[in-house]
Amino acid sequence: MGEFELIRQYFAAAACARVGGDVVLGIGDDCALLALPAGEQLAVSSDTLTAGIHFPDPCDPYLLGQRALAVSTSDLAGMGATPIGFTLALTLPEADPGWLAEFARGLDAMAAGCAMRLIGGDTTRGPLSMTLTVFGRLPAGQGLLRSGAQPGDLLCVGGALGDAAGALPLVLGEREQGTAEAAALLRRYWLPQPQLALGQALRGKASAALDISDGLLADCGHMATASGVLLRIEQQKLPLSDALVRFAGRDQALQYGLTGGDDYVLAFTLPTEALQALQAEGWLLHVIGDVAVGAGVQLLNADGQAITLASQGYNHFSG
Amino acid sequence: MGEFELIRQYFAAAACARVGGDVVLGIGDDCALLALPAGEQLAVSSDTLTAGIHFPDPCDPYLLGQRALAVSTSDLAGMGATPIGFTLALTLPEADPGWLAEFARGLDAMAAGCAMRLIGGDTTRGPLSMTLTVFGRLPAGQGLLRSGAQPGDLLCVGGALGDAAGALPLVLGEREQGTAEAAALLRRYWLPQPQLALGQALRGKASAALDISDGLLADCGHMATASGVLLRIEQQKLPLSDALVRFAGRDQALQYGLTGGDDYVLAFTLPTEALQALQAEGWLLHVIGDVAVGAGVQLLNADGQAITLASQGYNHFSG
Repeated sequence: MGEFELIRQYFAAAACARVGGDVVLGIGDDCALLALPAGEQLAVSSDTLTAGIHFPDPCDPYLLGQRALAVSTSDLAGMGATPIGFTLALTLPEADPGWLAEFARGLDAMAAGCAMRLIGGDTTRGPLSMTLTVFGRLPAGQGLLRSGAQPGDLLCVGGALGDAAGALPLVLGEREQGTAEAAALLRRYWLPQPQLALGQALRGKASAALDISDGLLADCGHMATASGVLLRIEQQKLPLSDALVRFAGRDQALQYGLTGGDDYVLAFTLPTEALQALQAEGWLLHVIGDVAVGAGVQLLNADGQAITLASQGYNHFSG
Repeated sequence: MGEFELIRQYFAAAACARVGGDVVLGIGDDCALLALPAGEQLAVSSDTLTAGIHFPDPCDPYLLGQRALAVSTSDLAGMGATPIGFTLALTLPEADPGWLAEFARGLDAMAAGCAMRLIGGDTTRGPLSMTLTVFGRLPAGQGLLRSGAQPGDLLCVGGALGDAAGALPLVLGEREQGTAEAAALLRRYWLPQPQLALGQALRGKASAALDISDGLLADCGHMATASGVLLRIEQQKLPLSDALVRFAGRDQALQYGLTGGDDYVLAFTLPTEALQALQAEGWLLHVIGDVAVGAGVQLLNADGQAITLASQGYNHFSG
């Protein structure tokens, strides 16, 4: 039996590979089998993470396992789906048992937090990279698309922005760790929390939604294009964490919040009444702007004046 | 816009990326959405193909596109599933428009033949490799598992074995092409035909099934282990193509048929009455042995005597 066959058996024995819930058949046959409750649709997303591009190499395999699954699962949150499971196609330069044990432990931890199950995959030799395909379910017709934003809607985000981008100098070893701020930012980079419950709460309420992976301006640009509207962002309303402002200073923190990726916070649009209904349920949401007739993304200063995005290098998002 | 964003838009415009059938939402949002008819389960499988390991590098991108989707879709055939769609996570050293156009044309050709739709994916930079995750559906409880073979069942395969392995010296340029036999074998390597219709016909009839990707002996070993039975293969009953026998000689052809992979022909077990029912429907099936009480795989010569597999290097499959 080859070492890669051993790896397959190793993952098949992981806690997150147990069959149950909507997973009828897991690892070990030609296919896995999923059951969907009547009236539900399946949500599917694939993400590839490559060493040196999407994460530093080398890095802690436990943290990598957690982060890889969180990043992928966040797409289910952006669609409002309830997680079911995932496949893992892992390419490894060698079968290092210590590395694999820690990586699987990280996967297990995030899978437990997200109610995800490992249902299959593949293992091959090569430079370290991985493709995760995630599966979720949601009532037919209630998927949160990017294309439904309506003029008059509010533009909101589900949490503080820019922390993961602020952590990059720490992740890359360019700044000293050891402070409380550094620890808080590193946690946001390595342990993003997919906003699954929020995504599900937005079903039937949000007119458009996505998870912010490329940065607020870039992802709002995607939503504006898909919806055929103008998204106006009031710069001073961006939620920035105290840790980020202390660590990076206010100006740099704002830049991270506007353009940094990797926070995996939801951005969404909805009518005022829907926002009030969610707030009444206890959700802490951040209104950062609104939807208007037009195209693209506009950034407004405290006086309500448009900031020329071109001068900041984002002219391709400008309406 | 980066070149890899352009690639994503390129695939989004491919013929196989059109929404329809069970695909409610395709490329371009956080997730794709699939609808399943009531009472059906979803079948899922992921395969990674890496340059230099799973296909020669360089190779014809049109043939590669066809073969990559065929190899992945064959797992749906082995489960008896009806194809729905697939995601493609593609890692490329560079964005070469000519290469991409041919690769997408090959994908389109195989997708049309298999009624598959491209529903999403990812594109990253790195050494050429790809992970395809395929989706199919089947009536709940009718999936063809590896674990149901019963003593007394017949062991069958759905077509000639060993052609793709026989083609390898041609694929690698170690033998001259140009003969009719060479062309036939190369077609089996580059253009495997997932036995989707046969897999669906086996629902409710076969007690166990899989697609042969690792070679007949290895895959029968997997089935024997999963089912807790002994599979007996009568060597002289192996279906070998005239092209393979002429190209490689009878002895080498037999070796290819026993141990060569990549044919993507179905192997399955079923009771005699079920075989007769399928033959009455017009299926040409090859009985190559039977299922007995015991464990592992036994190869029998023309006199019904067990051939010591250990002497052929397959002792780990021996019962």
